[in-house]
Amino acid sequence: MLDKAPSAQVTAVLSRLDEALTSGDIEAAVALFQDDCYWRDLVTFTWNVRTLEGKDAIRDMLSAQVQSVRPSGWMLAEGEDATEDEGVVSGWITFETGVARGFGHIRLKDGLIWTLLTSMTELKGFEEPTGFERPLGAKHGAGKFRKTWKEEREEEAASLGRATQPYVVVIGGGQGGIGLSARLRQLGIPTIVIEKNERPGDSWRKRYKSLCLHDPVWYDHLPYLPFPPNWPVFSPKDKIGDWLEMYAKVMELNYWTSTTAKKARYDPARKEWTVIVERGGRQIALYPKHLVLATGMSGKPNMPQFKGMERFKGDQHHSSQHPGSDTWRGKKAVIIGSNNSAHDIAAALWENDVDVTMVQRSTTHIVRSDTLMDVGLSGLYSEDAVRKGMTTQKADMIFASIPYKIMHEFQIPLYQQMRERDAAFYEGLEKAGFMLDWGADDSGLFMKYLRRGSGYYIDVGASQLIIDGEIKLKAGSDVQEITEDTVVLRDGTELPADLIVYATGYGSMNGWAADLISQEVADKVGKVWGLGSDTPKDPGPWEGEQRNMWKPTQQEALWFHGGNLHQSRHYSLYLALQLKARMEGIPTPVYGLQETHHKA
Amino acid sequence: MLDKAPSAQVTAVLSRLDEALTSGDIEAAVALFQDDCYWRDLVTFTWNVRTLEGKDAIRDMLSAQVQSVRPSGWMLAEGEDATEDEGVVSGWITFETGVARGFGHIRLKDGLIWTLLTSMTELKGFEEPTGFERPLGAKHGAGKFRKTWKEEREEEAASLGRATQPYVVVIGGGQGGIGLSARLRQLGIPTIVIEKNERPGDSWRKRYKSLCLHDPVWYDHLPYLPFPPNWPVFSPKDKIGDWLEMYAKVMELNYWTSTTAKKARYDPARKEWTVIVERGGRQIALYPKHLVLATGMSGKPNMPQFKGMERFKGDQHHSSQHPGSDTWRGKKAVIIGSNNSAHDIAAALWENDVDVTMVQRSTTHIVRSDTLMDVGLSGLYSEDAVRKGMTTQKADMIFASIPYKIMHEFQIPLYQQMRERDAAFYEGLEKAGFMLDWGADDSGLFMKYLRRGSGYYIDVGASQLIIDGEIKLKAGSDVQEITEDTVVLRDGTELPADLIVYATGYGSMNGWAADLISQEVADKVGKVWGLGSDTPKDPGPWEGEQRNMWKPTQQEALWFHGGNLHQSRHYSLYLALQLKARMEGIPTPVYGLQETHHKA
Repeated sequence: MLDKAPSAQVTAVLSRLDEALTSGDIEAAVALFQDDCYWRDLVTFTWNVRTLEGKDAIRDMLSAQVQSVRPSGWMLAEGEDATEDEGVVSGWITFETGVARGFGHIRLKDGLIWTLLTSMTELKGFEEPTGFERPLGAKHGAGKFRKTWKEEREEEAASLGRATQPYVVVIGGGQGGIGLSARLRQLGIPTIVIEKNERPGDSWRKRYKSLCLHDPVWYDHLPYLPFPPNWPVFSPKDKIGDWLEMYAKVMELNYWTSTTAKKARYDPARKEWTVIVERGGRQIALYPKHLVLATGMSGKPNMPQFKGMERFKGDQHHSSQHPGSDTWRGKKAVIIGSNNSAHDIAAALWENDVDVTMVQRSTTHIVRSDTLMDVGLSGLYSEDAVRKGMTTQKADMIFASIPYKIMHEFQIPLYQQMRERDAAFYEGLEKAGFMLDWGADDSGLFMKYLRRGSGYYIDVGASQLIIDGEIKLKAGSDVQEITEDTVVLRDGTELPADLIVYATGYGSMNGWAADLISQEVADKVGKVWGLGSDTPKDPGPWEGEQRNMWKPTQQEALWFHGGNLHQSRHYSLYLALQLKARMEGIPTPVYGLQETHHKA
Repeated sequence: MLDKAPSAQVTAVLSRLDEALTSGDIEAAVALFQDDCYWRDLVTFTWNVRTLEGKDAIRDMLSAQVQSVRPSGWMLAEGEDATEDEGVVSGWITFETGVARGFGHIRLKDGLIWTLLTSMTELKGFEEPTGFERPLGAKHGAGKFRKTWKEEREEEAASLGRATQPYVVVIGGGQGGIGLSARLRQLGIPTIVIEKNERPGDSWRKRYKSLCLHDPVWYDHLPYLPFPPNWPVFSPKDKIGDWLEMYAKVMELNYWTSTTAKKARYDPARKEWTVIVERGGRQIALYPKHLVLATGMSGKPNMPQFKGMERFKGDQHHSSQHPGSDTWRGKKAVIIGSNNSAHDIAAALWENDVDVTMVQRSTTHIVRSDTLMDVGLSGLYSEDAVRKGMTTQKADMIFASIPYKIMHEFQIPLYQQMRERDAAFYEGLEKAGFMLDWGADDSGLFMKYLRRGSGYYIDVGASQLIIDGEIKLKAGSDVQEITEDTVVLRDGTELPADLIVYATGYGSMNGWAADLISQEVADKVGKVWGLGSDTPKDPGPWEGEQRNMWKPTQQEALWFHGGNLHQSRHYSLYLALQLKARMEGIPTPVYGLQETHHKA
């Protein structure tokens, strides 16, 4: 008799998968998947971040990896029941490999695997010292000349990068670098974080003063130390700055402030980087085995080159350099661009009685923050989800379990719903002349973020100012040239300006590699970010994962880390485990190393 | 038919209690209790911290309070089932009063109430803005000249205590003052914390360098922001100092560092304090409605007056002033006292090659840290308890639910168990001449803490040094006099000394009131701490609660806050709610105001 209960179904499939993989019968394993199937692996089978689409891809991966990976012990996660919804059976699973413990998620259709997510939680023998394994702190017993925690911590800080060398250097001490370094420390990996600013959190503090996180608190937790229940939904920039500063302190990071990375070079023979940094006016050479660029997706300003820029007599700067809006009161500002920063800065200028015009050169996707939270995120990341028992780990895993190939199919109806709910709002924007889009395939904001990391504004109020004509809009024409005191558009419009803000976005992260290492290495690595969806600013071929993020690249020992707080939190775990495995000499046979298709 | 299931039993009793209290039938309510009964109330019925022992006490309290309190809605807490163990039925309960929501715990024997704990969780209409009610952070919409979070925070900090007055001034910014102030801020009560040190956490940092918390991490969480899972079991002093500093920052406390409280005076007509503080060389007058002394149980050093002290030519100081042990290498130290600080300092001196003698003047209770954690705390405060679903809130409430009158009965068998487990250890100590005790009634460490706050050492290694003779011991004789270079005992022993540490404990907290306000007010308030158990250093009459802690005192608008991290966390809630009710003009009829029996 076939037990149709969801948990029994999952257990049966897992048991057959276990048997097939243990006996090396790859065909039997592949036969457990339906034709339309996806296996997403986060460093357990592939030592890579890869989604295998279809049976052939799965067969190929298993043929290459299963002998070295030695998977076993597949079962429904302890204390979890599988569930069934509209013919899809879903469940949380655990398993092991020869060297690691894994956690994952499975979806069955008609008793066959539709989606499988496998992720590494810890390396055997190198578990993080938390919970039962947390440090004792006090040293019981007695010993002559024992050092205190403080003395040991100070000695470590004084020695690392001088008498001793870090295993990893992380360039960039924003939320990405900080969260990753906390994980590396927990894993006992000597790490130095290089940050150009004076204090942790300054990368937020130094931006325009009205900036708040656009993602809600439930989405933004850092590893180990979640925000308290009184933390605001959308954290103001200075508050998140303070949080990051305290986090870096209590997590005992070796965080070098006011330090600039000048040059890095890899020696493939020694398998070691030389990283030259400038700190306190002196150059210091560091010799890590691995280099992580955590300088941020929104770290490398894309400054346009318009004719005549050099003769402009007013202030002009990239949006990332915009200090605040209270010094231009009564003056005229022109903002080139129409994404998040453009809107935030336009509204802040308007609030300070600046006459502001936004130049919209191409269509923009807009969703209202409340609507996005409600329709787009509330199932996984909201107070409501928390009350219903959703944990951050599970939310991250559910999110990770949707293959990128079909994610837009899940997204399109959500955005259709948002469009209907806020129909009057969008009508108002169109009446004001604003050029709207909903993404290449109407799949909305999150797909745009994953594909290109740009092209949208999460409305927290600026759109109404545009609808009301308070922020002036000039849409549909690009910049022709800049004069001494105006911005001239191609349609002949001349916009007088005391201030020009270039809210023109950011370049690919491999630009950092070009600056720091060499153009050759940057080109070898190629474009960072994007799925290869063949939509605007995300050229194909189809990749199925974000290019070069959190995984091995064509440059040995060079890694890219970043993204929003959710991604930084979640993927830093897999990057940290990859580095730990290498430090401990655990074999890490990479399957499907990232190929290079675009230079930037 | 009588339903014997535990939940049904509790529900039946609660329903009858509800009916009796709603109809004002006090006798019917009292009849629900067994003869041997206890009702502990944390500010819901009594606006006080009180345990009512026996039916007469309960009848008296209800007669005085029930009309104003208006209790209702008694039920088993949502999602909780009652349980039965050895004839005792236990359950979590919820209820309301006219102005508040309550949470509690009940134990039944033979269908009648044996113990009842009622505690206030929040005031209706003044709930804390957490969870669903957390602040938005970002300000959606737009408005001319809006202020940012940072600007508002800076304006508040600049104005409070100058243009605007705090409702509460908290003297002492250690863990007690910090945790309480975080709660007060969440409740919207303008508060200034006065701290003499330069940085939050310095009250830990400045103590002897080997100091670690003696209580484990699960016991030590502050409100709102628990320690992360990688936090050490016993936090080193500098690490807990850093945590407190970051906590004060992210909780946005108005925390005045390097500030000394000089003088305070209450004006009963204006119902207002004048508190003179010195900050940055200037005197500032603050005018709060309430004054909280959170200067700590271990804040007011008890410096003995021995004959000849003034002629001693070496270093001599109270243990609280002991800076560390590395400057006396090769010299001779004498420690007067044999409790926690005495042992910690003795061991640290020994580790730094100091010749050290401990003078034990009276018996001391010693338990080994591992044993204490295992036998004494693990059911409520341990990793194991956490894994079994125990939350900090529930652990605190279970702890609070045991009436002090019978708590020793629960403690005695635990300490009997510890004594047996570590029999060889105790034998070694006795052989070394160490004078041991187990508390007045063999009830051990925690009762000693509650009764007198002294008289014990939680062994983390010093005892072995005493057993081995590495720390020399001189037991059973008090100090006769101090000479230029020795300590002379009454038995004639002369101990050469370059350093004398007086590990002689701390005075009653009302000593702070004497210093800051007046001896008259200190005497009016009387002794702070102790249960009135009529055991050494805890004179009767029986009080049943800790004297003057977290509740109204004989001095209007003067409050005492402190204790260990567990008590600070838990009781700060009730103190905060009492202050909030007063700020909002909610009637707070106090039942059983603390009487004064001892001046110190």
